[in-house]
Amino acid sequence: MKVDELCTAAQRAARELAALPRERKDAALHGVAEALERRAAEILRENQEDLQLARTQRQPDALIDRLLLDEDRLAEMVAGVRAVAALPDPVGRVDDGWRLPNGLELRKVREPLGVVAVIYEARPNVTVDAAALCLKTGNAVVLRGGTAAKHSNRLLAEAVQGAVIEAGLPRAAIGWLGPDRAELDELLRQRGLVDVVIPRGGEALKDYLLEHSRVPVIHAAGGNCHVYVDASAEVEMATRIIVNAKCQRPGGCNAAETLLVHRDVAPAFLPGAVAELKRRGVELVVDKATADLLDDGDLKRANRTHYETEFLGPKLAVRTVAGLDEALEHIATYGTRHSEAIVTSELAAARRFAREVDAACVYVNASTRFTDGAEFGLGAELAISTQKLHARGPIGLEELTCVKYVVWGDGQIRG
Amino acid sequence: MKVDELCTAAQRAARELAALPRERKDAALHGVAEALERRAAEILRENQEDLQLARTQRQPDALIDRLLLDEDRLAEMVAGVRAVAALPDPVGRVDDGWRLPNGLELRKVREPLGVVAVIYEARPNVTVDAAALCLKTGNAVVLRGGTAAKHSNRLLAEAVQGAVIEAGLPRAAIGWLGPDRAELDELLRQRGLVDVVIPRGGEALKDYLLEHSRVPVIHAAGGNCHVYVDASAEVEMATRIIVNAKCQRPGGCNAAETLLVHRDVAPAFLPGAVAELKRRGVELVVDKATADLLDDGDLKRANRTHYETEFLGPKLAVRTVAGLDEALEHIATYGTRHSEAIVTSELAAARRFAREVDAACVYVNASTRFTDGAEFGLGAELAISTQKLHARGPIGLEELTCVKYVVWGDGQIRG
Repeated sequence: MKVDELCTAAQRAARELAALPRERKDAALHGVAEALERRAAEILRENQEDLQLARTQRQPDALIDRLLLDEDRLAEMVAGVRAVAALPDPVGRVDDGWRLPNGLELRKVREPLGVVAVIYEARPNVTVDAAALCLKTGNAVVLRGGTAAKHSNRLLAEAVQGAVIEAGLPRAAIGWLGPDRAELDELLRQRGLVDVVIPRGGEALKDYLLEHSRVPVIHAAGGNCHVYVDASAEVEMATRIIVNAKCQRPGGCNAAETLLVHRDVAPAFLPGAVAELKRRGVELVVDKATADLLDDGDLKRANRTHYETEFLGPKLAVRTVAGLDEALEHIATYGTRHSEAIVTSELAAARRFAREVDAACVYVNASTRFTDGAEFGLGAELAISTQKLHARGPIGLEELTCVKYVVWGDGQIRG
Repeated sequence: MKVDELCTAAQRAARELAALPRERKDAALHGVAEALERRAAEILRENQEDLQLARTQRQPDALIDRLLLDEDRLAEMVAGVRAVAALPDPVGRVDDGWRLPNGLELRKVREPLGVVAVIYEARPNVTVDAAALCLKTGNAVVLRGGTAAKHSNRLLAEAVQGAVIEAGLPRAAIGWLGPDRAELDELLRQRGLVDVVIPRGGEALKDYLLEHSRVPVIHAAGGNCHVYVDASAEVEMATRIIVNAKCQRPGGCNAAETLLVHRDVAPAFLPGAVAELKRRGVELVVDKATADLLDDGDLKRANRTHYETEFLGPKLAVRTVAGLDEALEHIATYGTRHSEAIVTSELAAARRFAREVDAACVYVNASTRFTDGAEFGLGAELAISTQKLHARGPIGLEELTCVKYVVWGDGQIRG
């Protein structure tokens, strides 16, 4: 099927999906979970194809790990689909409503977006996560995964689509494209048929979409996140938070990349924190003041490039600052508006940081690692948005909907 | 000042504006209102320059009317600024908040977007409206008006900026550009500095921005709006609503362009409604069934092009349909997702129309002309969005803000 035909069919399916009550959608989701369980052996076999190809091509281990499906990961995927079924349906929720002086009754009601295109790379589980979130929200989805996972993705999409059809929902509720660049470009031109494009992948993918898409894109920039340890911070708490923010999963976009330390607390805090971070294998690059304080020959000097880098691994930049102003300035200059934390005992500093830092998520005395739909109690998420329009922070069910004004009257006309 | 310098200064100003309490912003708005009153004579003089130029160039009357400022319009503008000052401040509003099992306290707080670029055409009042809405919401604004109003716009922007400076707010809170195409293109490339572009103008402007902007655009498509008169409609109410929707201000984007009539009510409804519309000077183009029913030699035949056209004037297409399904299909095919109305006495039809029509505003037994921020009780608006992401319907104060998660803890780390 051609891309424009696929999207036309998806738009038509979306009209049908938008009108479905929750129970029909949840039944389809349970059907999807069962289909994945039933076809587990097949799925793992197709996944082996992708893995073999990746090994033949000597792809990096990290990619192979992202590609890999095994029984545990499949079970996790299935549990994820059932968890989405268990979440409340945002469609039809009345966000607000009031009566006008002329008697008109307004309701601001949540509706599906329509057709959501999800563009992703090597993780085959995105096929299932994205399909489940879109089904639940009454959106038709067009899935476009990367080359590396093409066998896995095709089978997963087929399995999901089969279950959707079996549940009596339209086939075109789940559309998918192979990893063909020309088809992707065609997809990105379908303004009017596709309502939004959501990338899930690295900076190169995001930049490509921003450059080429005529359809609105909800994107996630990388997370260059900071922990600022204020003069009044409890040293033990600050150590625990930076260790967690850096080490609990260094590859996460919500991991900390730079530690900012108020100079007054540096002597009490830095030696212990640095020792703990080094003990956990974190490589540190530090500014002059920190180097002078620690007098440790192992420590490399930090430069502007380090401050700009999302290391996505066990590496951390450390900078001593004169105070909150300098920390705020550093974050405004280098941060990517993702997740930022302050550790402090002083209320005024906490309030100023919370108000003035421009980021999707701002933390007072907590790890940046909490930026996550499940951790926030929102259920599953498609990605973390670092843009400001429509969705900021976890892209969960609500962010896959929009509002519509429904106005009930009894003959009112405008005077 | 170069465009990138202007936007850099605007971004810096935005940080300062974001932290301002409401009283500082309202004081600046009252200062703006006073400055406009004080400089009224000057403003009207500059407006005369624009008008003379437009007349010399033999511009159409409609454009000259849009350009024109007089004492009444100036007074309206000033009243608009004071009305914005009187509206509640959306910044800092907590949209939602909850406590997690681990004790973390989340707040979803409204924040300014940052830097808002408003691109408009001949109406000089947009300079003041946009500046007032952005000031109130703590956004820096970059104003870029059209050539025709360049003298008026420059003076209005200067007057607003002067008042803003006088109120102790940063100069770069109000930025403006002349009507230079190269500068516009440069502005549209300022992703990272400018947070959103909002056009206020015709389809050509919208299409240009969608094609060229690297900054996200919140746009309003034209309003190809419908009134559907169901079989069970009260004939008198239906007539009143279509007459209002078409005639109360035919140039408005929320005016009706096509009347859809259930064939069962057509004989009782159409003769009277058509007579009333003709009496008010509306030119009608009708489908075959309507023509056969009315047997009126004056009526031209409607074709597909008519159904696709936003007449923006005293012209209306009429089509008889077999029922609600056909009406829904017509609206899905030709509508621009703006405002759609049903007139009916039957609850099931009303509920289906309200649920299934995909538009910013859907009306049951009311005129489409109510789609308007002030009519909805939201206060002033910058435009009507017909897109789904971020803002749908009137772009008022709330739509000029975004959310930020602020998370308060006492040392929580992720396990």
